[in-house]
Amino acid sequence: MPITTIGLDADDTLWHNETLFRLTHKRFVELLSDCAEEAALESRLAEVEKRNLRLYGYGAKGFTLSMIETALELTEGKVSTRTISEILAAGRDLLAHPMEPLSGVEDALAALTEQYRLVLITKGDLLHQEQKLAASGLGDHFSAVEIVSEKDADTYRRVFTRHGTGPEEAAMAGNSVRSDILPALEAGAFAALIPYPLVWAHEAAETPNDHPRFAQLETLADLPAWLENVQA
Amino acid sequence: MPITTIGLDADDTLWHNETLFRLTHKRFVELLSDCAEEAALESRLAEVEKRNLRLYGYGAKGFTLSMIETALELTEGKVSTRTISEILAAGRDLLAHPMEPLSGVEDALAALTEQYRLVLITKGDLLHQEQKLAASGLGDHFSAVEIVSEKDADTYRRVFTRHGTGPEEAAMAGNSVRSDILPALEAGAFAALIPYPLVWAHEAAETPNDHPRFAQLETLADLPAWLENVQA
Repeated sequence: MPITTIGLDADDTLWHNETLFRLTHKRFVELLSDCAEEAALESRLAEVEKRNLRLYGYGAKGFTLSMIETALELTEGKVSTRTISEILAAGRDLLAHPMEPLSGVEDALAALTEQYRLVLITKGDLLHQEQKLAASGLGDHFSAVEIVSEKDADTYRRVFTRHGTGPEEAAMAGNSVRSDILPALEAGAFAALIPYPLVWAHEAAETPNDHPRFAQLETLADLPAWLENVQA
Repeated sequence: MPITTIGLDADDTLWHNETLFRLTHKRFVELLSDCAEEAALESRLAEVEKRNLRLYGYGAKGFTLSMIETALELTEGKVSTRTISEILAAGRDLLAHPMEPLSGVEDALAALTEQYRLVLITKGDLLHQEQKLAASGLGDHFSAVEIVSEKDADTYRRVFTRHGTGPEEAAMAGNSVRSDILPALEAGAFAALIPYPLVWAHEAAETPNDHPRFAQLETLADLPAWLENVQA
């Protein structure tokens, strides 16, 4: 069966994202270093983020609100307003940061686009994801962009039906086993994991190494050859 | 030419939204009443919101961040951390508020859906808009939902082509002249303004009363009759 459509994750698949979030974490820890140890700060921040996920969803704005909340809670209100201003500024920097494609991504997309319909499928803030795509200069390679609030099997069924010829003739590529791989396989698509050195704690899951439609690749540049191979 | 597709705005067209934002404004003004006059607070908040719009876009999370920034700026950092906690809580309440359809909306949608394809077209936070639609119980009436970062003529052309038979055979209904009416008319669609008692300052614009494809209606219940009329 021919593959017609490729879904691509954005953050940490096309461009760096987790690295920027980690830098913001670091700045947060430094700002509060007088008030608490790094480990305590990180674990409390993770707790607050998790508690707020249902309300805030994914993205830099919710993350900024959770940083402020953590600072207030952990210091029992003793944090300085100057530090809160600094956290706000860190959040704005995160939103305004220039996007650079990961190495090899541009060539890989140019090669893929000759043979397949490319669909960007990503979670996060609608406006911010659109801004990042525009800033990356990669937008022209995609025939559609779907910014979704959750990536489950239904999402992949719907997107690959709307923009392609159904999930059975589609492949998803991304860096998250939980969001990009498992639900895409469940929907009936092929799925290629392209790990990013850093994985967000909420996203960890086991790799489905034995699945016949799954592969783990080193970079996006390996994707065209793998697609040829599974269709042969 | 028959109209096949109706686009509907969500906030303040299907359910109250600006009222909730105004209540949050009121809470913000009360929280800071010791530090500044209402007029000064409101004008500074509007300034900060406008400055941040490019980064934060529309929605409750960005609004919360702008409230905190305004409080810090206006008091030159003298605001109490307790007040900042209260602002965070006000933002969470805004996100978690139950959605009630405006009166008559449910019947109007039920009537429209028998004859037309309904598409929800709204700006704002992706996750929050999806949550509001789910909470409103109105989701079943819509054959598609498009949450967009900007409402311009291109947006309406794209959405009415994707989910309908093009803008010429579509009508848009909403409460904002600037976002729902002018760009929909520009795209070639019909447009019905259904004013909400409160209009957000950024949204004010002049009503195109003489446009042959425009009407101002009192409630959504008047939409089916107008549509019959323009097609006769």
